[in-house]
Amino acid sequence: MSDKFARRMGTVHRSFIREILKVTADPEIISFAGGLPNPELFPVSAMDTASREVFAEIGASALQYSTTEGDVGLRSIISKRYAKRGLDVDPSSILVTTGSQQILDIFAKVFLDKGDKVVIERPGYLGAIQAFSIFEPEFVTVSLEDDGPNLEELEAAFKDGAKCFYAVPNFQNPSGVSYSLEKRKAVAALLDKYDILFVEDDPYGELRFMGEDLPNVYSFCNKSSILCGSFSKIAAPGFRIGWLVVKEKEIYDKLVIAKQASDLHTSTVAQAIMRRYLETNDIEAHVDLIRERYGRQRQVMVEMIAKYFPAEVTITEPEGGMFLWATMPEGVSAMDLFDIAIKEKVAFVPGRPFYVDDSGENTLRLNFSNSDEAKIAEGIERLGNTIKEFLK
Amino acid sequence: MSDKFARRMGTVHRSFIREILKVTADPEIISFAGGLPNPELFPVSAMDTASREVFAEIGASALQYSTTEGDVGLRSIISKRYAKRGLDVDPSSILVTTGSQQILDIFAKVFLDKGDKVVIERPGYLGAIQAFSIFEPEFVTVSLEDDGPNLEELEAAFKDGAKCFYAVPNFQNPSGVSYSLEKRKAVAALLDKYDILFVEDDPYGELRFMGEDLPNVYSFCNKSSILCGSFSKIAAPGFRIGWLVVKEKEIYDKLVIAKQASDLHTSTVAQAIMRRYLETNDIEAHVDLIRERYGRQRQVMVEMIAKYFPAEVTITEPEGGMFLWATMPEGVSAMDLFDIAIKEKVAFVPGRPFYVDDSGENTLRLNFSNSDEAKIAEGIERLGNTIKEFLK
Repeated sequence: MSDKFARRMGTVHRSFIREILKVTADPEIISFAGGLPNPELFPVSAMDTASREVFAEIGASALQYSTTEGDVGLRSIISKRYAKRGLDVDPSSILVTTGSQQILDIFAKVFLDKGDKVVIERPGYLGAIQAFSIFEPEFVTVSLEDDGPNLEELEAAFKDGAKCFYAVPNFQNPSGVSYSLEKRKAVAALLDKYDILFVEDDPYGELRFMGEDLPNVYSFCNKSSILCGSFSKIAAPGFRIGWLVVKEKEIYDKLVIAKQASDLHTSTVAQAIMRRYLETNDIEAHVDLIRERYGRQRQVMVEMIAKYFPAEVTITEPEGGMFLWATMPEGVSAMDLFDIAIKEKVAFVPGRPFYVDDSGENTLRLNFSNSDEAKIAEGIERLGNTIKEFLK
Repeated sequence: MSDKFARRMGTVHRSFIREILKVTADPEIISFAGGLPNPELFPVSAMDTASREVFAEIGASALQYSTTEGDVGLRSIISKRYAKRGLDVDPSSILVTTGSQQILDIFAKVFLDKGDKVVIERPGYLGAIQAFSIFEPEFVTVSLEDDGPNLEELEAAFKDGAKCFYAVPNFQNPSGVSYSLEKRKAVAALLDKYDILFVEDDPYGELRFMGEDLPNVYSFCNKSSILCGSFSKIAAPGFRIGWLVVKEKEIYDKLVIAKQASDLHTSTVAQAIMRRYLETNDIEAHVDLIRERYGRQRQVMVEMIAKYFPAEVTITEPEGGMFLWATMPEGVSAMDLFDIAIKEKVAFVPGRPFYVDDSGENTLRLNFSNSDEAKIAEGIERLGNTIKEFLK
């Protein structure tokens, strides 16, 4: 059979993280491995009401085929929310997608030829690596520092014939790192200088619980760039509703074609319920609630790490998002640690899958959004003790 | 900008049909152009109830991320429905997809290298041509006769190094043609003989309103084949829920990887509501209702065509599905007819986009699912008179 598979499938692998999640399904395990929002914060009752109203008011049309571009009212709400943040985005430049994951797929369809150089952060978002890999690009990685990418490396990569740069400038998955204002501007200037396509993935941008909100890199770009958003982290991921914003109509039209070929359009019902929810609820107040809760969870995690992790393990201290990144001394393996930690009933994601060059062996990702404060305290104590034993 | 697009985008075009649908939005136009189910038959109230029950009973978990493979309960129901039709399909071999359109995309990702020979029916389903085109195959077409593909042409195509065959053996879109039992067996034998991958797209199979139900070609295949199903035509398309069935685990696993890279998973909410609907309603009775209604609509269309179309226009007489196919004398253009018909306030889809070789100029597709009997009678009279005038 395997002789029939397309060549591209040789380089694409099942998500390692999804495999790990199966191991961590044991309810006794305190898991920092997943990347899930806290379901206690899902607006279940408001969505129930929204859904009743949709069925009562628009009925059959919520169940019919709809346009590839997406619900006009939903796109208008997305546009207004950007306006509040000072970003002028016309609804006609917004394309609703089946989660923001789909943006990576259709971007790759429209832009990536085999062998094209795609610049990503090191470590980088696994879902993007997976989606792009299907189209067989060459990945070029740039170190992520505490305030964003290393600019010399970024410029060198751009100079060396890169096609595009994919980045998560706000509270990155996996590292939790955010770009400083200076680096945002510097990145935009380099993108313009070398005329590099830019995909700014921003699922976590609204989840800032300390520090000051910063403009998207997109807002500083003059040339081709795509800004990706999602309702997964501010409302609920089960709808699979994301969106992209793009400046040029020519690019928008090509992305629509690719989306049409992929799944015709995003669920009409899901879009209708989400739109109704947004029309009749205060999403900003809801996001405040998430921010407040995740902020406390992150605080407990950082404090407990300070208390229980050995000093030679360093961590990022994210100002938002859902993840924190830990680095152990060189030469030790987070995979080996994982096997021991599972026996101690605590889980995380080893960092290596986030590196396309098989480095990062000594790193790990910790999720703080999906556990309550008590679990975080207990889990980090367990993990800290396990690491101490492991590093002896 | 255009220098940045991937080479593949040169061969992929925006759906011509979707463009046509914009022209036909005028409410005075009686349109047989679309491919929509009749929204009067959507189970709005049952879906409303199902959705209330989902929010009340499983709440947050219906809004969370879920598995790429799809809801276990939903897959089990799909499996049981196949069992009733005599097809033994284990739930673990079913992958839930974002509409059956997505199957075409992930199939192409997993199997199609540039230049691979993909055999399709002539005329062929436009959505498949669009989805496959992204992966730059070479299309090889086989004439569709009244009882299925021309077997000599099919064998010649298989002999000539084809990679796969994509077909819609039940009430094909666009032609309305169904394969006879003999041709189903013969096609399966040829697929086995030449070890050709097979994708059997079956969105309309349950919509038979006359004649006898026939087994899927899939049920006669021993080698690699993928059977595609959808809730779009038997429940509602707005959920975007389709599924595929495959015999080999190795293929299943690769398709899961490709699906994961495409949109992580299909909407959890949409799957939960559909599952609940299926658990608490008699879908078979509902499908009977659709069949009965579409059967009557098709009957009116065929009768009115007999009455108003000139004798030199031939049509298929489908035993199910949503479409009927008309062929005018050689040398006339359905595109020219379209421009005149629009002025007479009646619309259809010119057949040419369904041919990859730019033939089929004299053909047209007529949809009978989306108009009531009175509209069909009036629209066909208008169209018949227009054609008579046009062919003078």
